[in-house]
Amino acid sequence: MKLKLYADRMSQPVRAVIIFCKKNGIDFEEIRVDIAKRQHLTPEYAEINPMKQLPAIVDGRFKLFESHAILVYLASSFPGVADHWYPADVFKRSKIHSVLDWHHSNLRRGPTTIVRNTVLAPVLGRPLNPEAAAEGEKFLSASLSKIESIWLKGNGRFLLGGNQPSIADLSLVCDIMQLELLGETERNRFLGPYKEVQQWIENTRNATNPHFDEVHKILMKAREKLQNLRLKGANNEGGESDMKRTLHSRI
Amino acid sequence: MKLKLYADRMSQPVRAVIIFCKKNGIDFEEIRVDIAKRQHLTPEYAEINPMKQLPAIVDGRFKLFESHAILVYLASSFPGVADHWYPADVFKRSKIHSVLDWHHSNLRRGPTTIVRNTVLAPVLGRPLNPEAAAEGEKFLSASLSKIESIWLKGNGRFLLGGNQPSIADLSLVCDIMQLELLGETERNRFLGPYKEVQQWIENTRNATNPHFDEVHKILMKAREKLQNLRLKGANNEGGESDMKRTLHSRI
Repeated sequence: MKLKLYADRMSQPVRAVIIFCKKNGIDFEEIRVDIAKRQHLTPEYAEINPMKQLPAIVDGRFKLFESHAILVYLASSFPGVADHWYPADVFKRSKIHSVLDWHHSNLRRGPTTIVRNTVLAPVLGRPLNPEAAAEGEKFLSASLSKIESIWLKGNGRFLLGGNQPSIADLSLVCDIMQLELLGETERNRFLGPYKEVQQWIENTRNATNPHFDEVHKILMKAREKLQNLRLKGANNEGGESDMKRTLHSRI
Repeated sequence: MKLKLYADRMSQPVRAVIIFCKKNGIDFEEIRVDIAKRQHLTPEYAEINPMKQLPAIVDGRFKLFESHAILVYLASSFPGVADHWYPADVFKRSKIHSVLDWHHSNLRRGPTTIVRNTVLAPVLGRPLNPEAAAEGEKFLSASLSKIESIWLKGNGRFLLGGNQPSIADLSLVCDIMQLELLGETERNRFLGPYKEVQQWIENTRNATNPHFDEVHKILMKAREKLQNLRLKGANNEGGESDMKRTLHSRI
């Protein structure tokens, strides 16, 4: 039975899992759970993931959620996944766990918080929240600085000095990609000072293309629509309700 | 060469790692890094953990930080650790990863945030921050409810229906134990509604005693001192500076 992946590509951990599957030839059925339509909150989806978050997988009788746990499971259970994604060597593997754990309390609290409380807030029918966004900026800047000075230390093209990407590269880069929704100027304001981070994003993209670009298409389209809506909003007062309509036709 | 564990027992992830080592007969040297004296921020400690957090280990030439990654490493690398702590079975193991990942963005943001912004704030020379504490309470209540209704579902005495504890039980329970610092009334206000959570804490304590109680002694002493200081503070105005003095003699 084919692996089932419950997904909305607007979610960054979902994108990481999809790219991983595609890159590693893991055959899967992508089952759309539309966050904007609140489909993740239905009783049907709670049967798949009682925490009502994305992504989740069902592999035969086995259900799993939390994207890092999913990536580790897929790398451990499916044949043909190259060792560099999640090395068998206990020392290398432990360092990857260390990055993934660090990610949760640091970088993960940056881009999503900023995006949700700025450009996405009107679309989600929520007020702008500059304080929450500022908190997100703090996490983002501190995290990018740590990535550049600690995790990207060494001569490798990837985290931990690697010459091939691991699941940690994919997870962290997909999170940073969420900044695309802010538009180029804002994105560059955050990423500009971090040349090595920018190069690493590019390396991860190149190592996983054409899947990386294909899976991020939805984000680029959303960025464009958000930009148009902002322009429209600046020109007339109907901007916000236009945005809400757009939401229902899926960004 | 003996495993080196950089530790301050006032930190809950440190306590989880120490209890794990003691329970599993892992011989280690506990190297005190006094958070109150800001020893974790020194250049010497940055050589061990550039993120300047506790715990960290050095095993021969191998350095590692992030408590979950450390627990996984120890369970994978040291002989004699019973399988239930971190099962070899990929399905069971993946579920444990799922709990550990969930923990980061949920329960972990509860007890520490509450404690830091209430009882510990004056001791740390910081203002009380009721808003931050309220945010922590939100995470705590939501997390305890999910633990009771989802992770403790089933007939087992531990998370995921287990009859023996895993590293996830230890990590989560040690986090909840931080609530002891609030004093009994406040602790009970949070835990009171969750009978199964209370039983599970007791089960984890029993399964790891005498180490659990021994390692938590510092917390119980700190609770007592904080209570005395609060009483003193209520009786005279010198309470706060008394608290600061106490900090320097280590809570």
